[in-house]
Amino acid sequence: MQNSSEAVERMTRASPNGDLAHERAPEIVEALNAQEPADAARMLRSLPAEKAVEVLDLPGLDNTCEIIAELPTDTAVALLSGVSDDRAADIFKELIEPLRTTLLNRLNPDTRATISALLAYPERSAGSIMTTEFVSVPSTWTIAEVLHHIRMVERTRETVYSIFVVDPIKKTLIQAVSLRRLISADPHAGVLSAAPARRPLMISPEADRMEAARLISRYDLLAVAVVDGPGHILGIVTVDDVIDTIVEESTEDAQKFGGMEALDEPYLRISFLEMIKKRGGWLCALFLSEMLTASAMQTFQNELEKAIVLTLFIPLIMSSGGNSGSQATSLLIRALALHELRLRDWWRVALRELPTGIALGAILGVIGIARITVWQTLGFFDYGPHWELVAVTVGMALIGIVTFGSLAGSMLPFVLKRIGFDPASASAPFVATLVDVTGLVIYFGVAAVILRGTLL
Amino acid sequence: MQNSSEAVERMTRASPNGDLAHERAPEIVEALNAQEPADAARMLRSLPAEKAVEVLDLPGLDNTCEIIAELPTDTAVALLSGVSDDRAADIFKELIEPLRTTLLNRLNPDTRATISALLAYPERSAGSIMTTEFVSVPSTWTIAEVLHHIRMVERTRETVYSIFVVDPIKKTLIQAVSLRRLISADPHAGVLSAAPARRPLMISPEADRMEAARLISRYDLLAVAVVDGPGHILGIVTVDDVIDTIVEESTEDAQKFGGMEALDEPYLRISFLEMIKKRGGWLCALFLSEMLTASAMQTFQNELEKAIVLTLFIPLIMSSGGNSGSQATSLLIRALALHELRLRDWWRVALRELPTGIALGAILGVIGIARITVWQTLGFFDYGPHWELVAVTVGMALIGIVTFGSLAGSMLPFVLKRIGFDPASASAPFVATLVDVTGLVIYFGVAAVILRGTLL
Repeated sequence: MQNSSEAVERMTRASPNGDLAHERAPEIVEALNAQEPADAARMLRSLPAEKAVEVLDLPGLDNTCEIIAELPTDTAVALLSGVSDDRAADIFKELIEPLRTTLLNRLNPDTRATISALLAYPERSAGSIMTTEFVSVPSTWTIAEVLHHIRMVERTRETVYSIFVVDPIKKTLIQAVSLRRLISADPHAGVLSAAPARRPLMISPEADRMEAARLISRYDLLAVAVVDGPGHILGIVTVDDVIDTIVEESTEDAQKFGGMEALDEPYLRISFLEMIKKRGGWLCALFLSEMLTASAMQTFQNELEKAIVLTLFIPLIMSSGGNSGSQATSLLIRALALHELRLRDWWRVALRELPTGIALGAILGVIGIARITVWQTLGFFDYGPHWELVAVTVGMALIGIVTFGSLAGSMLPFVLKRIGFDPASASAPFVATLVDVTGLVIYFGVAAVILRGTLL
Repeated sequence: MQNSSEAVERMTRASPNGDLAHERAPEIVEALNAQEPADAARMLRSLPAEKAVEVLDLPGLDNTCEIIAELPTDTAVALLSGVSDDRAADIFKELIEPLRTTLLNRLNPDTRATISALLAYPERSAGSIMTTEFVSVPSTWTIAEVLHHIRMVERTRETVYSIFVVDPIKKTLIQAVSLRRLISADPHAGVLSAAPARRPLMISPEADRMEAARLISRYDLLAVAVVDGPGHILGIVTVDDVIDTIVEESTEDAQKFGGMEALDEPYLRISFLEMIKKRGGWLCALFLSEMLTASAMQTFQNELEKAIVLTLFIPLIMSSGGNSGSQATSLLIRALALHELRLRDWWRVALRELPTGIALGAILGVIGIARITVWQTLGFFDYGPHWELVAVTVGMALIGIVTFGSLAGSMLPFVLKRIGFDPASASAPFVATLVDVTGLVIYFGVAAVILRGTLL
């Protein structure tokens, strides 16, 4: 039995000049990634051309542009002409001038036109991840003709399992048929006889690439057609591009949720300065907004001096608010991302979070009061003559803060989405800051009411 | 152009007794999900049998078990016999007794045996998401024979695009061939002539289902074979199951990262009590460990009374430690999940995080010192006669805490993984608690050194 980590182990042990040509392309990519670009370029050249194209075709190859820059121009052009056009467009996107223009001009005119068209689609759009290497046939063909055509073009198409049937005159997409149905049907019948009863699913090239991912995952498709306004098929998004997209987006979401800009490269490859930039920006922004807590504390300076005992619970109370907020946020971000909820459902969520927050706050409040009572009674610590009132203050403040945290945490993703931001972008740190500042106000507000005339 | 949200809108408007039978299965699922189980069961029965099976086959159908319980036994048995066996196993997993045994015994013996075998695989294993409805042929067949066989069985197989070739005597898996190569090859040649040069990728049924997902995504496969020890093929994991798995796991990760147990159901469907349980457990655990901050504060009570000005910056300093820790954690969880890093790389990470943490801490420290200086100089607030020393204390404490946060945040995922836990399980809240308590100790430690003889 062979699995990927064993294969990786094997490659790591293999010498770079070893029998690379006999490895699978993903393992070769891993071996190249361990080398400097110049060495990787040398190794790539030593491979049979077909294998080298297969390797370059994989998005996992690091430093692709540096490697291409190290190759003789002829080799670079030959390899780039060989890879699938969506991958070639991705590579050209990263290439720097003047190499980019030099190489683009050396491609044959058809390929150049296709790649230029792909390059024009906005980042993260369905158009940017589509391939133009699909099978399309006119609706007037018989199944036998279609099968014959597939046998001819099979080697140059990313998938031949979805066949797109177009109007013979207007060239608009009318159906999608699957190869499995074609080979089981009567070869003399028209191709449309193997088509399902409904129109095929389509997406516009400007649509978000996650929309393509959702269609493919919802309808268990192998590919979805990308069509322009009048209905001409421009390309297809295939299931393997969709998997890459889903993994990439969830990595970015996780990093944004952790309060930083998404890294474009693996952890160990990113430069020190890049790392500081990606993390420092957010950290500073959060630090600046958290400074509001210092301002809030300053306004309560009198209360603090009179009742120093209150300061003991500030970290505890603040973190509880932050935790309940980040729970609610992470829950709602996912529910929105999975389309379980729509924007107009915000009030249903608010109506759920209000009692949930009160209940959770009450649970923590009871624990907090119990803690103070036990410590006081057993003599671990002396919270002063009014310790019962301090305990009640802590308990009440917890209810208020956890409720506020749950509400703020659940509503912020809706607000971000409403004003056109990705709800995942740093909702959690936002919520934490908001809840920290508000938490202090709630705490001292509750204290002012309960301790008025005794401690305050 | 048709996209999923429009389709959903359309369904939401359609009356439940409308033309449901003409909708696509995913849209029918959505319509059923909006109903009580009894009504959903009634609607399911009103569909043509083939459509009802298609609907039941989709994992997105809510309350499947309640719906099945509402169906007449004959209908339930007929539908369960029709759905793919991996989905049937999932449904049986959730069914409650005695219905489960009743229905299982009514299935035909072959189906029952298959489903019982699938039920025996551990949750989250490759075996638990595999299907047994694949095409396998002996290596002695010609391509024409294989194609004829595929035409016969096509309707009953989840995919016919990967064909698994087994040894005619030992029945062990020897190759996987793709339908696209088969239809382009000479029909009179042996099936192995269309096979690639290498052995097929395989996985054991006990392997983690994410391992299957990684193989499929790494090698751009449509299906991967699941084989037992001696090499017999037990089933296959297909690309659409892998997409569902990836989405499910990243949802769980996001929820765990947000500090709660993963929900099994959509947000609006989960009961109030279930919600309190899933969120309250973690919230209480975090609350109890955050109580250490109160204990830490208590030990510094003398310092607090002497230098009340120090309390003003506690929330700011603590949150900076927490933010830097959660950045590092989210970064490392993903890097480990994507296999960019292995356990033994921990020291490389530590060597990167140490200077990163110091640099980030220094940046925040400078901002913090500037803030205090500006407020003091412009007269916004009076930090007392020793304000310069207070500013230096805050700056130094920030360097210490951000460095500790980055180190602790980056090492904890390694520790969790090493001791056999999922690094994603609540690393972030763990780190926050650890960093909060340590942060207080660092802050008061730095203060004790710098302010000794003046404020303290």
